[in-house]
Amino acid sequence: MGLRYNRDVDVLRESPTRAINRIVERFRREGRDVIMLSTGEPGVPPPGEVRLWLSEVLKEDSMRLYSYTPSPGFLSLREAIVGDVRDIDGVDLTVDQVVVVTGGQASMFSTFASILEPGDEVILMDPTYFGYWNLLAYFKVKPTPIIATIEEGFQPDVEAVKESIVRGKTKALILTSPDNPTGRVLDWGVARALAEIAVDYGLWIVYDEPYKTLIYEGEHVSMYKLAPENTISLYAFSKDPGIPGWRLGYVYGPEWIVRRIALVSEAITYNPPSVAQHLVLEYLRNRELRRKHVEYVKRVYMERRDVMLEELSKIKNAKYMKPAGAMFVMVNLGEVLEPLGLDGAKLAEKLLYEKNVAVIPGEFFGKSTKMYIRLSFPTETPQRIREGVRRIKELLETLETRQ
Amino acid sequence: MGLRYNRDVDVLRESPTRAINRIVERFRREGRDVIMLSTGEPGVPPPGEVRLWLSEVLKEDSMRLYSYTPSPGFLSLREAIVGDVRDIDGVDLTVDQVVVVTGGQASMFSTFASILEPGDEVILMDPTYFGYWNLLAYFKVKPTPIIATIEEGFQPDVEAVKESIVRGKTKALILTSPDNPTGRVLDWGVARALAEIAVDYGLWIVYDEPYKTLIYEGEHVSMYKLAPENTISLYAFSKDPGIPGWRLGYVYGPEWIVRRIALVSEAITYNPPSVAQHLVLEYLRNRELRRKHVEYVKRVYMERRDVMLEELSKIKNAKYMKPAGAMFVMVNLGEVLEPLGLDGAKLAEKLLYEKNVAVIPGEFFGKSTKMYIRLSFPTETPQRIREGVRRIKELLETLETRQ
Repeated sequence: MGLRYNRDVDVLRESPTRAINRIVERFRREGRDVIMLSTGEPGVPPPGEVRLWLSEVLKEDSMRLYSYTPSPGFLSLREAIVGDVRDIDGVDLTVDQVVVVTGGQASMFSTFASILEPGDEVILMDPTYFGYWNLLAYFKVKPTPIIATIEEGFQPDVEAVKESIVRGKTKALILTSPDNPTGRVLDWGVARALAEIAVDYGLWIVYDEPYKTLIYEGEHVSMYKLAPENTISLYAFSKDPGIPGWRLGYVYGPEWIVRRIALVSEAITYNPPSVAQHLVLEYLRNRELRRKHVEYVKRVYMERRDVMLEELSKIKNAKYMKPAGAMFVMVNLGEVLEPLGLDGAKLAEKLLYEKNVAVIPGEFFGKSTKMYIRLSFPTETPQRIREGVRRIKELLETLETRQ
Repeated sequence: MGLRYNRDVDVLRESPTRAINRIVERFRREGRDVIMLSTGEPGVPPPGEVRLWLSEVLKEDSMRLYSYTPSPGFLSLREAIVGDVRDIDGVDLTVDQVVVVTGGQASMFSTFASILEPGDEVILMDPTYFGYWNLLAYFKVKPTPIIATIEEGFQPDVEAVKESIVRGKTKALILTSPDNPTGRVLDWGVARALAEIAVDYGLWIVYDEPYKTLIYEGEHVSMYKLAPENTISLYAFSKDPGIPGWRLGYVYGPEWIVRRIALVSEAITYNPPSVAQHLVLEYLRNRELRRKHVEYVKRVYMERRDVMLEELSKIKNAKYMKPAGAMFVMVNLGEVLEPLGLDGAKLAEKLLYEKNVAVIPGEFFGKSTKMYIRLSFPTETPQRIREGVRRIKELLETLETRQ
């Protein structure tokens, strides 16, 4: 008798960065050196001070670092997060409004599982972070993409959001700021208009802000401040202090829903990783160290971003926006690719196989960015970023000549 | 307009150990010292050698420890696990049959999400690990408990399992060995009979074996060896090498289903924590160190177990089985409690509030063990274990006198 399984899982897809990484790994084993402009992987480790602190604690012959923790995270860490949210978002929370979770992905999974039901509709931008599409499909929720254009600086189109709401169906609006993949920082006026809509129509705002400390120009907008009863904020410590692999983040919002998100979080991972909680507590506790580290990381990334933009400016007919935050530049190459019968995916493939440069095809972020590629700048050195973009230019020129 | 949420999450319950821990935390802040016989928390940290190794790597100014990893875990770790499974279970796997996951809870969640559908039935023992009941309810699966009695050494009743199968409904059989909460190690003959049933009826065997290296008497049985096409094995590194808070485990089984479990694992946590992967790889790599550590831990726990049993023998009319593995003793106090109009839950409450001893009421493990309490022996020193059990005796005697 054949063994049956749950076919719902068949909608799940491996993330495109992972799929590319597997090819890159193979290349590396063959001795090929790939320039990684594909991954949102920080290039700066956590501050030496907190690493040394942890290094010392590891020598203790006790269970301090290793024990289970409360499922919503240590109380002291949740208190430190309350303080941090006050500093960054200008918002006052109680500890019971905060649940520590096992990274950004778990923050999304726990939140979606808590608020979404099969048949619901969710409004999100196109382009947007690729991971949402996958999870919404798994939760049998219909995504309603709102096209955000490069001409409008990738700001959400407030009227289009309003018009796409279906009463009794639309459950939530997903917003990301600073945005992945566009680097757009949400405009204050747009944010206020969207908050009003959410309140009027009884929508959740799922506000995903893992890059909130990485803003180079402009200011971070707190959606929670604008719509405290409707907003669930997601954060991850992956980008700052730079422990993506360790899996730690938090969710905050109205206590009644956070309590439920905490139960899902416990159901999926029992508790957020204790060693990451210890490290981050030490990081947040030392506010001056933290401030300096963020300033340092921003300087490093801005330099990389600016090098990338400088090189991009040399590519004829490439359209892109200077990202005000996060780690990415979305590049529209439609004018070059269309005449060649290519798109972002085909270009990305050629770049990887012919030029040893890894980028993410725009189509993973939405239908509107099929002619885009996403370049990330946090991982590689300025020199290698320059070389990577130079190779993109070179490939495009060769393709145009070949034609 | 009111904000709606997904009411499915309302079946989720906080684990009883966590609920007790919150009370204990409060007591501690009041200066009260509680003897912890409630938690399956190892009392021995990972070997000094691997901790020192990690301590050194933390000093490196690189992203090595912090980066994202492939979603099914590092290839080198999966290779080490294949070797370890060969040593311990006598089973040959390919790396594609192994997925590293974010701890034992994630191993269960990912597996259940991959194989179970609403309306399915799942056979499991009563008593059994409390976490299964919670997750099965969340996945809208009907549990079919088979009572395992202390008289039969808590071995599964093969005939009862067979009779409880409903064709087209029963999807899986959950087995745990060494068992939580009973400490029973699965009998070879029983295992073989259950494997045959699973094959005949097309059932999955979800074989949960996080204590497989902690067997004091007898031998670990590999269900995978007996029914390789039907068995999904779950393991966690929580108990050995003792990093429960770090959240790392693995799942192995037929490649086609493991591939799907890996996608769920990626959907919930993106990747298993990298720092835990590094530590465990270092641990597994050094086989001699590992062997010695396991021997040491077993000696420590056996001594604690034996102290606990010795003290328990002084409690009149307490019935219990010497656990051959894991970390717990299930104690049937029916003969004492029933005449007093009490049960395990009421006794546990009195123990905590009146005697500062934390234990888990038997009812969390199943209906058949309402008159039981579960005592765990890995966390406290022999002296404190002795004192804890002595206080249980004292309380029971006081209650009998009061009557």
